[in-house]
Amino acid sequence: MAYSLHEKLAADCESLGDLDLCTVLLMRDHRFPWVILVPRMEGLRDFHDLPRNRAIVLFDEIDRVSRILVDEFEVEKINVAALGNQVPQLHVHVIGRYASDAAWPGPVWNAGVVGEVDQAVVGERALVLRRVLREPAGRPPETT
Amino acid sequence: MAYSLHEKLAADCESLGDLDLCTVLLMRDHRFPWVILVPRMEGLRDFHDLPRNRAIVLFDEIDRVSRILVDEFEVEKINVAALGNQVPQLHVHVIGRYASDAAWPGPVWNAGVVGEVDQAVVGERALVLRRVLREPAGRPPETT
Repeated sequence: MAYSLHEKLAADCESLGDLDLCTVLLMRDHRFPWVILVPRMEGLRDFHDLPRNRAIVLFDEIDRVSRILVDEFEVEKINVAALGNQVPQLHVHVIGRYASDAAWPGPVWNAGVVGEVDQAVVGERALVLRRVLREPAGRPPETT
Repeated sequence: MAYSLHEKLAADCESLGDLDLCTVLLMRDHRFPWVILVPRMEGLRDFHDLPRNRAIVLFDEIDRVSRILVDEFEVEKINVAALGNQVPQLHVHVIGRYASDAAWPGPVWNAGVVGEVDQAVVGERALVLRRVLREPAGRPPETT
């Protein structure tokens, strides 16, 4: 069976494009800069279903998106999570957080549903992210 | 500055021992088999602060703990998350979930605080996990 994006992810998010492993989505929620990475492989459910040789690629893509959220939106903290209790397809949340945001210091899931979405905010974020994601990926030197 | 475990993690959890990269903790919460992995490196805050050459080790340790939770406690789903809004030291939650548990299908953080802990349940879990974690790690063959 071929890979296809789960219909709930497709319905709830803006599409930002594809990286090597993952399709990149932006949650339609003006409260948080909230990116979702979906590995384009069929049959993944839990994080540990990912083949080991793809895990480092997922790490690189989480790393890249995290740095973009810090650089472009000046977020103060990144939350990373693979939950998938409601959407069984493996997807990784990469969420930029501020000490002033609607859920701080709790997880974003404690903040309830978004209600009416401010689409201007979401649309502007999507424009910025699509532009930056088209640029070549760089990674700072190794530190150990 | 040397690595040391954050005092809140030490206070809230049972210690299960050390893997190559991470100290392994068990949250004192009878509602969920809830392991926390803490990389023993000073100065890590966000997931993307982890050096790339340690990321695959973290993946392996998440993978190992996830499979143990499935095998020993027959959990139906694994949630993996690095949040750290309240405890700034990088730590990764690896939580076994059941469709019958106190938070399902929400994240465990939606279930409120645990209240009085059933220490018999937590203690039995800790015994099982310490035993299994002492065994040599194996990993199933690669699949791509």
